[in-house]
Amino acid sequence: MYRTHTCGELRLAQAGQEITLAGWIQTVRKFGSITFADLRDRYGITQLLFGEELNGQLDQQPLGREFVIQVTGLVAERTNKNPNLATGDIEIKVKTFTILNKSVTPPFTIQDDTDGGDDLRMKYRYLDLRRNAVKKNLELRYSVNRAARNYLHEQQFMDVETPFLIKSTPEGARDFVVPSRMNPGQFYALPQSPQTFKQLLMVSGYDRYYQVVKCFRDEDLRADRQPEFTQIDCEMSFVEQEDILNMFEGMIKHIFKAVKGIDYTDKVQRMSWEEAMWQYGNDKPDIRFGMSLLNIKSAFSEEYSLLAKKDLIAGTDFKVFNDAETVVAIAVPGCAEYTRKQTDELTDWVKRPQIGMQGLVFIKCNADGTYKSSVDKFFTEDKLKAIADAAGAKAGDLVLILAGLEERTRKAISELRLEMGERLGLRKKDEFRLLWVLDFPLFEYSEDDNRWVARHHPFTAPKPDQIQVMINNNPLIENAAEYLKHPYANIKANAYDMVLNGNEIGGGSIRIFQRDLQEKMFAALGMSKEEALHKFGFLLGAFEYGAPPHGGIAFGFDRLCAILGGSESIRDFIAFPKNNSGRDVMLDAPATIDNKQLDELQIKLNPKA
Amino acid sequence: MYRTHTCGELRLAQAGQEITLAGWIQTVRKFGSITFADLRDRYGITQLLFGEELNGQLDQQPLGREFVIQVTGLVAERTNKNPNLATGDIEIKVKTFTILNKSVTPPFTIQDDTDGGDDLRMKYRYLDLRRNAVKKNLELRYSVNRAARNYLHEQQFMDVETPFLIKSTPEGARDFVVPSRMNPGQFYALPQSPQTFKQLLMVSGYDRYYQVVKCFRDEDLRADRQPEFTQIDCEMSFVEQEDILNMFEGMIKHIFKAVKGIDYTDKVQRMSWEEAMWQYGNDKPDIRFGMSLLNIKSAFSEEYSLLAKKDLIAGTDFKVFNDAETVVAIAVPGCAEYTRKQTDELTDWVKRPQIGMQGLVFIKCNADGTYKSSVDKFFTEDKLKAIADAAGAKAGDLVLILAGLEERTRKAISELRLEMGERLGLRKKDEFRLLWVLDFPLFEYSEDDNRWVARHHPFTAPKPDQIQVMINNNPLIENAAEYLKHPYANIKANAYDMVLNGNEIGGGSIRIFQRDLQEKMFAALGMSKEEALHKFGFLLGAFEYGAPPHGGIAFGFDRLCAILGGSESIRDFIAFPKNNSGRDVMLDAPATIDNKQLDELQIKLNPKA
Repeated sequence: MYRTHTCGELRLAQAGQEITLAGWIQTVRKFGSITFADLRDRYGITQLLFGEELNGQLDQQPLGREFVIQVTGLVAERTNKNPNLATGDIEIKVKTFTILNKSVTPPFTIQDDTDGGDDLRMKYRYLDLRRNAVKKNLELRYSVNRAARNYLHEQQFMDVETPFLIKSTPEGARDFVVPSRMNPGQFYALPQSPQTFKQLLMVSGYDRYYQVVKCFRDEDLRADRQPEFTQIDCEMSFVEQEDILNMFEGMIKHIFKAVKGIDYTDKVQRMSWEEAMWQYGNDKPDIRFGMSLLNIKSAFSEEYSLLAKKDLIAGTDFKVFNDAETVVAIAVPGCAEYTRKQTDELTDWVKRPQIGMQGLVFIKCNADGTYKSSVDKFFTEDKLKAIADAAGAKAGDLVLILAGLEERTRKAISELRLEMGERLGLRKKDEFRLLWVLDFPLFEYSEDDNRWVARHHPFTAPKPDQIQVMINNNPLIENAAEYLKHPYANIKANAYDMVLNGNEIGGGSIRIFQRDLQEKMFAALGMSKEEALHKFGFLLGAFEYGAPPHGGIAFGFDRLCAILGGSESIRDFIAFPKNNSGRDVMLDAPATIDNKQLDELQIKLNPKA
Repeated sequence: MYRTHTCGELRLAQAGQEITLAGWIQTVRKFGSITFADLRDRYGITQLLFGEELNGQLDQQPLGREFVIQVTGLVAERTNKNPNLATGDIEIKVKTFTILNKSVTPPFTIQDDTDGGDDLRMKYRYLDLRRNAVKKNLELRYSVNRAARNYLHEQQFMDVETPFLIKSTPEGARDFVVPSRMNPGQFYALPQSPQTFKQLLMVSGYDRYYQVVKCFRDEDLRADRQPEFTQIDCEMSFVEQEDILNMFEGMIKHIFKAVKGIDYTDKVQRMSWEEAMWQYGNDKPDIRFGMSLLNIKSAFSEEYSLLAKKDLIAGTDFKVFNDAETVVAIAVPGCAEYTRKQTDELTDWVKRPQIGMQGLVFIKCNADGTYKSSVDKFFTEDKLKAIADAAGAKAGDLVLILAGLEERTRKAISELRLEMGERLGLRKKDEFRLLWVLDFPLFEYSEDDNRWVARHHPFTAPKPDQIQVMINNNPLIENAAEYLKHPYANIKANAYDMVLNGNEIGGGSIRIFQRDLQEKMFAALGMSKEEALHKFGFLLGAFEYGAPPHGGIAFGFDRLCAILGGSESIRDFIAFPKNNSGRDVMLDAPATIDNKQLDELQIKLNPKA
């Protein structure tokens, strides 16, 4: 061992002991004939004191930032103690030191507030990883990993490793594929998730399975996506939805306690998918704050549309509202005094292409009880008051109204709500609110293919009382414009998402476990019998040999860590992330490979013209 | 929940309670008007008793093997208790039952001694996994995983996930590659190990890293290899070899205790590579039994050859010995009475192509003190006695002697020793003997390329006192025939293997952590500066910013589990293994992919003529 102690370990109790430390030079400061240095390792920082007698050696072998050194010396009480440092009561009076390795000047400073830009920090990721902020993220990640495993172990779950070289079954996202040298012309795929394997394990009787496992999706990368990501993947047999909700509510609470010291004693709130969409415009609402939607007019669904408050705008001449499919509002607390500049800026915000609205209507609920709006000429003050009241606005609040096509407008008001919540500081990083969103639609309609697609995945079971609706109806959509009237549009899935602070952190479902129902599902998704057998014959086969009722869930481990760490970016919680082009800029990967490798794989490049 | 208890849980204490179980029908037996069934789940087996009143339902819904059912009934004391079953004191008097899923007749019996052949069991792996024997293997695997993690956590190791989509750096085994759609013409590689990443983590100051991680090698598969396999991968900073040996000796002992209940209190034996080769003909000797080699004549190395007992055969006319490079013997206890048929069979055994010897010489040390050999006409009884004595043979033993070229003969006597150990029952599955093999050569000479190759890998450090030998000598080999005389041939590595019962279960090394030495190593392996920079520029770069001394080890998790489970085959310890052609016969993978996928990846097939 190059050390007797770590740099985070020594206290006054060790004063007088001779010890040896090894680590990195964080800073060097010379005062007259004496040199101080901070020595850093994973565990902390310890102050070193080099006396006059070492000046000769220091002149010959000067210490620089990030040099790796080994020192032997005596632990001594400090005169100017540093209460911010665990080792701040002591310093090491250095007797001898050895430079184990030098360092050239780093391209950015290894500090919490680094001067390194994203690209530089990605290229020198090994230096960025030295920064305390990044180290804390990875430590948190490990704590979450450990806490999840411990909980699942206690609950008799068993870690079973599933294969990475599997079969390509394109459905949903694109697979990464791996050419097989031993089977030329054939390819493995990397798993998008271990879905079918964990179901097979249930068929095999393993009862409770988990894995913290890498998954792969070859998608165009958005800001916060990675081609490889990690799931906490779980499956249970002989359970109903309620059992899974309770089990994994328990897991997340255990993680909160173990990692953040938070006792999350409340029962996790539950909300149907329709309610979430209706109240928040979003299937993963952030419920740390209110500002729920006032649905004035809506084409959300036949049933819900009846609940909209059309009366509030009835009999007015405002064409924008009258022509719109959907009119929705939120009451933003305390913003009635927004200036023209501020409301203009908000209008620009909703007009951005990402939001795509034509404009923004506002009503200021003034402190004096008067109302002022951008549509004063169409609405009497009474009407404005009625809308504001219905939106739950109080004196001093600002009501924001959007109008347009249903889907876009609902999405826009949801984004606007989050934005206003953010601006008002209502989305506190240290507040955690969990939510189960339930009763998702089983199917979504794909305009591109004029067919049903599985909203969760093709293995999700319908609600038990709707299985017959699925079996008794032909999935074919004759009139694409009226797909909402097809009985499949109303089938709800036995599926659930766990939402934390407006982010989906986990999702799952009760699975189909009967061969005939699974075949019906594949057919509903437009798969021929042959295609279904080719892709999923092993699963259909397995269901013939006594498959138990089962269900499961998968948590997005990277995102869960990011949210617990108070960050928006999963990249900060991955040791070696890729950039938005899927490149590892440190490795400079992907890269070209030798012709010899291509020949062995019996493939060649085929560049697009 | 479909159950109130599991099938392994109920005892006499619960007699009289109404409970609900769910599981698989293992067996059904009818006695008169009463039907018994064994219900199985992951946790055990419980006997069900269906009374006369259920006969009607049973007639309509007969129960078959592997049917999944749910039963509600009363726990009752059994009259004929089964002491071999944890639940053997009770049975369930069934009140109601529901068939949750039927099963067709399985293609083989779900029992310890199944009638299913390998191919059938691989195809229906989900049924094979139901067998108790396979389930126990996977449970053991999970215990080993858990024990290793717990130990490493206690020792302040931190699980850090490293990427799977990395850069191809062909050196040693072939990489599996993954075409990148977003970077057409470029490929990722799947990691053969996280070697460089764990070293970067040390450069980043993570100090103690571990991961239980999948690795990939596209090699032609031998009987017991898998294209994807799992490593327990570890790395530590500021350590010397001794620290690593102690740390991981501790880990294995912890695993023995936690998984097998074995207190392995002995200090793990250590042996240099040269000693292992000299004494056992093998760098992973099985030390559960003796039978170490008598080196009569050898070209193993200049130094060791001097230790051979040439005198024993000096002055005789036996051309086979006189012409051989190497003559080695073992004394097999208690086999002096082997018949002619038996010695002929052994002679055939060493003549098989896998062993490749020309013949076998034996000396029987008869109980009456006489000696009888296959070379009586060349050796006096005194000479025979001298050889037998030197081999450590006693009356009743059989001495076996092989002669030929050094490398082949040493390997052959090693195989023969293991074979005789096996035949004599000396390789007990429930006896575990650990061994550290140390001081491996740093380089091996490759005749194919007339250059040095790294025996462990290019990141392994030489022994500190031999660094200068490496730096001061030109790696070029002028005369291939005399490569052994090159100074590089004698450089020993700071590398170590852990051997368990004759299997290498782990291996590692102290790493190079200085850029100049690492560059020298790449050059020694025939890499140009450009090639080294292209492949490992990130690592060389990292070494410039204060890399600490570090080292590590990786354990072959599949093999470790297999040995602890008393099996030769890692496949039995992998949930979804591949066959010897790298195929998953259950999935039927790898498989062809759509032209659309190929086009998107901008590659095409290029079948060999």
